[in-house]
Amino acid sequence: MLKIAVLGCGRIGRMHAENIHTHPRATLAGVFDVVDAAAQDIAETLGVTKFDSAEAVLASTEVDAVLIATSTPTHADLLEAAIAAGKPVLCEKPIDLSLDRVKLCAERIKGTDLPIMLGFVRRFDRGHAGVRQAIEAGQIGEVHQVTITSRDPGMAPAAYIEVSGGIFRDMTIHDFDMARFIMGEDFTTVSAIGARLVDPDLMARCDDYDTVTVTMTTASGKQCVISNSRRAVYGYDQRVEAFGDAGMALSENHPERTVRLFNASATESQPPLLNFFIERYAQAFAAEIDAFVDAVEQGKPAPVGFDDGAKALVLAEAAILSVREGRPVKVEELA
Amino acid sequence: MLKIAVLGCGRIGRMHAENIHTHPRATLAGVFDVVDAAAQDIAETLGVTKFDSAEAVLASTEVDAVLIATSTPTHADLLEAAIAAGKPVLCEKPIDLSLDRVKLCAERIKGTDLPIMLGFVRRFDRGHAGVRQAIEAGQIGEVHQVTITSRDPGMAPAAYIEVSGGIFRDMTIHDFDMARFIMGEDFTTVSAIGARLVDPDLMARCDDYDTVTVTMTTASGKQCVISNSRRAVYGYDQRVEAFGDAGMALSENHPERTVRLFNASATESQPPLLNFFIERYAQAFAAEIDAFVDAVEQGKPAPVGFDDGAKALVLAEAAILSVREGRPVKVEELA
Amino acid sequence: MLKIAVLGCGRIGRMHAENIHTHPRATLAGVFDVVDAAAQDIAETLGVTKFDSAEAVLASTEVDAVLIATSTPTHADLLEAAIAAGKPVLCEKPIDLSLDRVKLCAERIKGTDLPIMLGFVRRFDRGHAGVRQAIEAGQIGEVHQVTITSRDPGMAPAAYIEVSGGIFRDMTIHDFDMARFIMGEDFTTVSAIGARLVDPDLMARCDDYDTVTVTMTTASGKQCVISNSRRAVYGYDQRVEAFGDAGMALSENHPERTVRLFNASATESQPPLLNFFIERYAQAFAAEIDAFVDAVEQGKPAPVGFDDGAKALVLAEAAILSVREGRPVKVEELA
Amino acid sequence: MLKIAVLGCGRIGRMHAENIHTHPRATLAGVFDVVDAAAQDIAETLGVTKFDSAEAVLASTEVDAVLIATSTPTHADLLEAAIAAGKPVLCEKPIDLSLDRVKLCAERIKGTDLPIMLGFVRRFDRGHAGVRQAIEAGQIGEVHQVTITSRDPGMAPAAYIEVSGGIFRDMTIHDFDMARFIMGEDFTTVSAIGARLVDPDLMARCDDYDTVTVTMTTASGKQCVISNSRRAVYGYDQRVEAFGDAGMALSENHPERTVRLFNASATESQPPLLNFFIERYAQAFAAEIDAFVDAVEQGKPAPVGFDDGAKALVLAEAAILSVREGRPVKVEELA
Repeated sequence: MLKIAVLGCGRIGRMHAENIHTHPRATLAGVFDVVDAAAQDIAETLGVTKFDSAEAVLASTEVDAVLIATSTPTHADLLEAAIAAGKPVLCEKPIDLSLDRVKLCAERIKGTDLPIMLGFVRRFDRGHAGVRQAIEAGQIGEVHQVTITSRDPGMAPAAYIEVSGGIFRDMTIHDFDMARFIMGEDFTTVSAIGARLVDPDLMARCDDYDTVTVTMTTASGKQCVISNSRRAVYGYDQRVEAFGDAGMALSENHPERTVRLFNASATESQPPLLNFFIERYAQAFAAEIDAFVDAVEQGKPAPVGFDDGAKALVLAEAAILSVREGRPVKVEELA
Repeated sequence: MLKIAVLGCGRIGRMHAENIHTHPRATLAGVFDVVDAAAQDIAETLGVTKFDSAEAVLASTEVDAVLIATSTPTHADLLEAAIAAGKPVLCEKPIDLSLDRVKLCAERIKGTDLPIMLGFVRRFDRGHAGVRQAIEAGQIGEVHQVTITSRDPGMAPAAYIEVSGGIFRDMTIHDFDMARFIMGEDFTTVSAIGARLVDPDLMARCDDYDTVTVTMTTASGKQCVISNSRRAVYGYDQRVEAFGDAGMALSENHPERTVRLFNASATESQPPLLNFFIERYAQAFAAEIDAFVDAVEQGKPAPVGFDDGAKALVLAEAAILSVREGRPVKVEELA
Repeated sequence: MLKIAVLGCGRIGRMHAENIHTHPRATLAGVFDVVDAAAQDIAETLGVTKFDSAEAVLASTEVDAVLIATSTPTHADLLEAAIAAGKPVLCEKPIDLSLDRVKLCAERIKGTDLPIMLGFVRRFDRGHAGVRQAIEAGQIGEVHQVTITSRDPGMAPAAYIEVSGGIFRDMTIHDFDMARFIMGEDFTTVSAIGARLVDPDLMARCDDYDTVTVTMTTASGKQCVISNSRRAVYGYDQRVEAFGDAGMALSENHPERTVRLFNASATESQPPLLNFFIERYAQAFAAEIDAFVDAVEQGKPAPVGFDDGAKALVLAEAAILSVREGRPVKVEELA
Repeated sequence: MLKIAVLGCGRIGRMHAENIHTHPRATLAGVFDVVDAAAQDIAETLGVTKFDSAEAVLASTEVDAVLIATSTPTHADLLEAAIAAGKPVLCEKPIDLSLDRVKLCAERIKGTDLPIMLGFVRRFDRGHAGVRQAIEAGQIGEVHQVTITSRDPGMAPAAYIEVSGGIFRDMTIHDFDMARFIMGEDFTTVSAIGARLVDPDLMARCDDYDTVTVTMTTASGKQCVISNSRRAVYGYDQRVEAFGDAGMALSENHPERTVRLFNASATESQPPLLNFFIERYAQAFAAEIDAFVDAVEQGKPAPVGFDDGAKALVLAEAAILSVREGRPVKVEELA
């Protein structure tokens, strides 16, 4: 049994803690949060150790590996500390909002053999992963166009938006990773447009956008489009389409339940989409823990690693630059 | 060009006239109706001859074949007269409401080589026919269960219900034929239940039912279920399912247009179903004319003939007897 | 925390044990199986007590309630013993294969206030339950026709079929309960047909059927059809349709993943359906435990109880009699 | 009855001729083609006049209006001549491949009251039009993002590609118009990328692209994405999505028939998509004629006019410039 401790006991940390607790080949080695009550609550509910500091977690011989679900500004420090302490890491995205800090982190952990996994959970969704599997099985031929639609069910609180790093680093970051995952190739050019249509005042105050479209190309000319909105009233809209020279594969939305309603005014009506990520990606979050346990147990690289986190952030930076300067940006400009 | 005259200029006769008029290998040789104004209207609109009697139609050398779309009680007489006059016939269903009259008609036309086609239009629907084609192509193996859902969008007028012969002879008759078409085998046992749930007063007055379920078996034990209602508020519900030992094929409903709507209360909503048979089966009605023209041109038997009409009526009679006596009825009882 | 022990450690018992183990308001108080190794395995994996006898479980003060997942012939005895020991019970279906034994059991437990819940898990499926909720919310008006399609993905082993009590008691029993749940009314007449199309030899040897259709009516004439097959090659086919005078609600199948594939020969292709009940009804099995914990905690009747188990069995007996005698059977004949 | 003559008797001209011939309030006044045999064939089949020159058509008092379906380079001349002759015009797209020629044409016909309609047939598709109707009915609120997927089923012949004016003027032109139609607003910025992935040699030879993505914004920041490919092996892929602040509306693809197939390897499989535009947009082509007849009869402006044709071409020119110079292009640059 792999003993995993969870750093950070907010909503996502709690969910990870529960998934580790119920995993057949892992145990929850304990939890820590700077807000002691949050850690205390999980510790009591699940009957596990509450640690008093991140240092104590990393020093414990009862901890084989750590999951970092703290606030974003602490990710890089904790990741470095965990590696220094010899603990494999599953780190929530993003590594950091600053590309320079990420590059520094890369420098500091260079050469480690320890599995480092980034929390790009959507790669573990059976639907999205099914698109990639269809590609690898040759079912749609060579991919020409990837289309990702990704819309949150509602605007996050202003307090969150203000420290989020902006939509590209906070929200599109998942889609940048998904684009790389599905395409199976790196992108060389990024073109983005941003608009303030949902909450213009908040967006203007934060110098952010709530509605964006990103176009990317690979060296060989393959194309990807990402459409984001911070608010889809019908729920959490998460779709992936891969179009190839021998076919197309689509990963579809998940309504709350599979009921179709017919009446005098409409047919085939389904309930709103699952809302929000913890519900929509419940299967994926569990599969993510499973993949991490696999990687650590077998001493093999994580299926999505530090480099993937860094590359997604580079695409985000390219998109930000593209919007700011109103031009396509070459990824190599940010090297 | 095959010169086809239309007898009966009601709603369905008019539609047939137009389909013949626009068919590339047929011309509308003229029309007749006992209500002269109805015939006059079509004759003027389409620029064709208005005949003054059915006899005149059948006697005309300008008429190669006739389509009978008059009121049900006249079908058998006109069919016999047409055959006697040497004209191939496409006759709307049913041949007659009386099984004895149908048997007499069969006797009278016995031995003719002329194509006689029955208007079981649903066999020509691309969707339903696609189910049969899937079966013939071996795509679902040997058929074990056929499920037909067939619901009208609204109760017909009382005046119509009163002379309809009852739901089994008037409405289920299409499904009896569809069941035989899809199964590719005759049924030996019929079990039916009927209820008065939509308009109990009218149904009681007419000794009829508005909600019925029919179960049928073949000699080898294959099963078929038909579900009918005289009123589906969401439109004309027309579905066919064939379940076999190697798969399943479904023919689906047709919404008015292929738009899906998502909002805060529902997702995937489509418009109501096409309403009513002239709209829902527009493609099939045109294909039916085409099949008739083919049969006459090539001197081959019609793809759905007199015998099919008779057999569907036998199943209807068996269902009526089953409801009346509360027991399964063997088809041979009605021989 | 409600302390629940699990009797029976086969495939379904293990799943229940895991669901109890991870339930936030319940703990797994221990397990027992006549095959000691089966109990030992779960006890070790989950770190819980292994009991040496059912009696020891029922006598334990560390056990608040029991879940019975043993072999069918032991259900009634254990249920009676649990009630005698003052423990609430969640009992897998069926109570017994013999209607007389069930009636005796009912007699013996009469008057108890303890929650007794029957494992008709499908009532807790979000989709099927969503159909019932739509009805209760008045979204489809008064229900006229219920259609249940329920097909297993493959023939069970002969050894299982031989002791199963036959398809109606073993498989259709779930659909009889679903029919009552959806209709919200009891049925008064049952008509069934059975065929041996999948494995004729095995079925003949066991005097059983692999392909059946059941039609039922309520006192007011409402209709229900159940279609069963022991083998659907495309997976576990589980659909529920309720047709009412103001609309229709459908609960749909679940493919393994939500991917749609398009290529030169087909479009919209999805993977096979989830296979088998533990996967398809994973959400429902967890919700079932939750409902049991609720009932015990709040001292209220279980949402599906002993009487529901008895009534489903009566419908199964009526179906068996109907097939045997080739006639509709009134439920009151079996009172 | 409105007497309409058809100029140009190729595949699309023939289809228009048939639609006019069967329209209840129009008659086919005759046909003309520079290839006399083509005109002769239609004239004989439908029993109408064959004209010997376009001039003869325009001079005829038996012609109330003309439909121009000749080769693209003749469109502008014929359109001007028809207007000069006092005949309302329904002109196939594009007006011309040269924006200068279109501007000159606009100058020459300025001030006419005659209905001039452009053949952007997709506006008349019930599905796509349904999206616009949903917007106008307020069902999805203010539109934020429009996504158009438009892929041909197969590469056109090289001879056609060579004179097509390139993918943006020939194929995307329909999507530019659709984008304007759905958005209900003009676009101010166009950004396009093009790749040669389907037939690199042919594309390089023609300085054309077979795979393109176009992003456009309105003055208020609303966004539109168009994805095109010259070859989708699964058929003619035609989808429109409008996302608004109160919901989303989608217009879906049309398979050849509505059959869903389930077997051991796949479920829900449908046939390939309707192929090609004459089949996919059959309903729309008929509705287009109807709208033209309406406009002429009622002396009102056509629902899609000369200006729409000009504006779509401006967007095409902007896209071409964007690809060439690798930058977003402001539409006003092309004024």
